[in-house]
Amino acid sequence: MEEEVKLIGTWLSPYSCRVIWALKLKGISYEYIEEDLSNKSALLLQYNPVHKKVPVLVHGGKPICESMIILEYIDETWPHNPLLPSDPYERAKARFLIKFIEDKGRTLWPIYRTKGEEQEKAVKESLEILQTIEENISGEKKFWMGDDISMVDIAYGGVAYWLDVMEQVGGVKVFEPHKFPRLSSWIRNFKEASVFKDNLPDREKMVAVLKHRREMIVGTV
Amino acid sequence: MEEEVKLIGTWLSPYSCRVIWALKLKGISYEYIEEDLSNKSALLLQYNPVHKKVPVLVHGGKPICESMIILEYIDETWPHNPLLPSDPYERAKARFLIKFIEDKGRTLWPIYRTKGEEQEKAVKESLEILQTIEENISGEKKFWMGDDISMVDIAYGGVAYWLDVMEQVGGVKVFEPHKFPRLSSWIRNFKEASVFKDNLPDREKMVAVLKHRREMIVGTV
Repeated sequence: MEEEVKLIGTWLSPYSCRVIWALKLKGISYEYIEEDLSNKSALLLQYNPVHKKVPVLVHGGKPICESMIILEYIDETWPHNPLLPSDPYERAKARFLIKFIEDKGRTLWPIYRTKGEEQEKAVKESLEILQTIEENISGEKKFWMGDDISMVDIAYGGVAYWLDVMEQVGGVKVFEPHKFPRLSSWIRNFKEASVFKDNLPDREKMVAVLKHRREMIVGTV
Repeated sequence: MEEEVKLIGTWLSPYSCRVIWALKLKGISYEYIEEDLSNKSALLLQYNPVHKKVPVLVHGGKPICESMIILEYIDETWPHNPLLPSDPYERAKARFLIKFIEDKGRTLWPIYRTKGEEQEKAVKESLEILQTIEENISGEKKFWMGDDISMVDIAYGGVAYWLDVMEQVGGVKVFEPHKFPRLSSWIRNFKEASVFKDNLPDREKMVAVLKHRREMIVGTV
């Protein structure tokens, strides 16, 4: 008998979406539970007492936390349609790219919730990160690791879709396509892939929520 | 023919030691290259252009960066004496514990290079981290994941050995054994295991170097 799979997430979170994309690529049925982070559920606190964060995957009653650890778990539990290359060196390269965006990705988000000098600093730091990403994409392949979607493409989903929304809400432009031709090409391929295209949060709804958050933090313009 | 293994590291770094311990546990011969971080070598810049940091493992001429990624690579390339459990759920638990210290570990180091209020804050934050670690050790096993040394024990080496040196240099006490009985017991087991005991940087030399660094940063007391 298959053990039940549940995902506790929030619709706006690129980290929750990573898990959704991986489950869809593997063809695993699951129950989705939307979490209210402003009023955290007993379930979330029980399953992720250390960080109290989404996403949490619950498989056969056992919780797994942290999006990239969930992805490794999914890939090891359901090995078909692998999300990592089989060669150890290629796997290390994939993990290096993933660790980069795990460590630096959060540097991109302040652009939507800052203004003035603080925002200028956020834009500058974001540009440096995008530049490093650009230099680390081979540019010869459809996706990061080859012709198929891998864990690396999933990890960089925030850059492909959320960044643009943050720019709009923050009223700044960080990502100018002509400066990042390889990253631009990858983003196009990302947005055309059905697993991503069909499982992204609604853009208008995102803009509305993030605009509201921005106003709460920096005041209306 | 076996491909040549080289390790670029610094003797003081717990991250470099992680790789040394893993190679020793696997019985892999390697050439060690001491890096001077105040005057970085062309080799380091070539092999780790993104972060320019140690450790770097070079296997058959190909570089792998980031200590925990190197450990996963070592475990996949030489699967004997495994460093991770075989069960996917146990592996996810191990990776969660590793990610915790990867994300929070650097919070411990400022205790040696701060003073006054800043140091008080560093001590408080360090205590919170140690408390979480204490709550996440089962206390029933010799090592984190069971009777054998795993990647988790290796990842927490900084807590087992470096923390105490930082306290001495900073002139503060963070780790009081009676407050952390399970962590204390694990540290004892860590220090008794020959792979760690025989491959730790010299304590007096560490104290001297870090005292000098402290004086450069906060001035003499």
